[in-house]
Amino acid sequence: MTLITSPTNRYVKLARSLQERSWRAKKGLYLIEGVHLLEAALQAGASLEVILYSPRIFTTPRGEKLVAGLQRAGCHCLAVTEEIMAGISTTMTPPGIVAVVPMQEKKPADLLAVARPQSTSPLLLIIAAGIQDPGNLGTIWRTALGAGATGLILTRGCVDPYNPKVVRAAMGATFRLPVAVGVEPSRLARELREAGLKLVIADVGAPLTFWQADLRPPLALVVGSENHGPGPELLAAATDRVGIPLVGPVDSLNAAVAAALLLYEALRQRQKV
Amino acid sequence: MTLITSPTNRYVKLARSLQERSWRAKKGLYLIEGVHLLEAALQAGASLEVILYSPRIFTTPRGEKLVAGLQRAGCHCLAVTEEIMAGISTTMTPPGIVAVVPMQEKKPADLLAVARPQSTSPLLLIIAAGIQDPGNLGTIWRTALGAGATGLILTRGCVDPYNPKVVRAAMGATFRLPVAVGVEPSRLARELREAGLKLVIADVGAPLTFWQADLRPPLALVVGSENHGPGPELLAAATDRVGIPLVGPVDSLNAAVAAALLLYEALRQRQKV
Repeated sequence: MTLITSPTNRYVKLARSLQERSWRAKKGLYLIEGVHLLEAALQAGASLEVILYSPRIFTTPRGEKLVAGLQRAGCHCLAVTEEIMAGISTTMTPPGIVAVVPMQEKKPADLLAVARPQSTSPLLLIIAAGIQDPGNLGTIWRTALGAGATGLILTRGCVDPYNPKVVRAAMGATFRLPVAVGVEPSRLARELREAGLKLVIADVGAPLTFWQADLRPPLALVVGSENHGPGPELLAAATDRVGIPLVGPVDSLNAAVAAALLLYEALRQRQKV
Repeated sequence: MTLITSPTNRYVKLARSLQERSWRAKKGLYLIEGVHLLEAALQAGASLEVILYSPRIFTTPRGEKLVAGLQRAGCHCLAVTEEIMAGISTTMTPPGIVAVVPMQEKKPADLLAVARPQSTSPLLLIIAAGIQDPGNLGTIWRTALGAGATGLILTRGCVDPYNPKVVRAAMGATFRLPVAVGVEPSRLARELREAGLKLVIADVGAPLTFWQADLRPPLALVVGSENHGPGPELLAAATDRVGIPLVGPVDSLNAAVAAALLLYEALRQRQKV
């Protein structure tokens, strides 16, 4: 095992540059950190550009097994010193392993066209309209995958989905649930209409409660920004505006909570016999 | 307006000391920061020990109105310099106003005994069993209030509910939804049983889906720790173990999301005609 000790090594420089959004966008690459996310990426069969690990990864059986699995899958694995790892990582306690991953972005049309011949469940998309908080976006991604959604669409103005905090909160959903990024709302509204999808928007004060709406047909659920809501274009195009009842004196719910309630209500209605 | 400029002023020292958990516990006081939380506290009629603000609060009508309202309510308001405020605040961008607030803790028995003669809804408690993440606990608090829960119970080992990140994520629910803190699980299980409450636990792999359980009777919902689950005492005492279906390949859901799904399913069943 050759240990990379130089911060100017090209892979080290590449990995470190991905801390910044501008470099991520320029290269079409992002960074994932830690054993759990690498395991999820490997299991999902995600393509991995390069893996950097520190020798301490071999001090646990789980870490050892992970590196062996990555090597067996033909991944390019390089050992680096602890100092190098600390410079690459975006966390206070650097992990023993990171990977550089190519972005796999879709167009909304790809997500609308998902053919699901074997599935008993119709299309279920989630649209994050201007979600700013990285933890919320990551949690929405994770919950959407759990609830059986088929795609995630981010409108322009959302936080970067490759922000390390988003990737961490998504807990591996990044590699599984396809995403379309930077989508223009009025164009999206048109495409959804043309595809014959319902457009269901969580909207404070809507007369219909979310569990009263029919969420069984193919549809896209919209959850709006924490501060600015879903925006005028999507609101105008909504086929259903649904409220989440607030019994106690709170102004609103967390955006990831609102998304989860709609997603699981869709699943409940679809699984009900 | 006399402007406090000395960091050794007793109120300044008191407020700053509350950044640390040990001092919060010793004094029975905690700190709230920012216009939104102060407005919520004022609206809720929360008792406020002392308020510290910087003169820039008067540069917005909303800030001006808030200070006037606090003074009208008889609160002890003191002006401090920006430097003093920066030393008190736990945030990167210090707010223009903070308050020192007495903790208002309950015993579990108080929450079980809530008499609700005018209410059509039976008791709905939420138990956070070992929740460690401050954002999750705050979000659970906020969502529980929104869903009409009547109390929050934290078992031993939960993050401090007066941690500034919890208070921020709770968005004012801190002043509205009563809390019992540091509760011993086996004693809690006994008290719930004696009170005749159902004890419904979110548990990965439970055969019953959460929407199949009857959540209409008086009950306590348990959401367990992100890493260690709800713990053996509560699991053993559960009257219902309910699973949240995971259609896509995710291991689990975020704890605040799991809590929200159970809370709103209880509300849905109770409001259904």
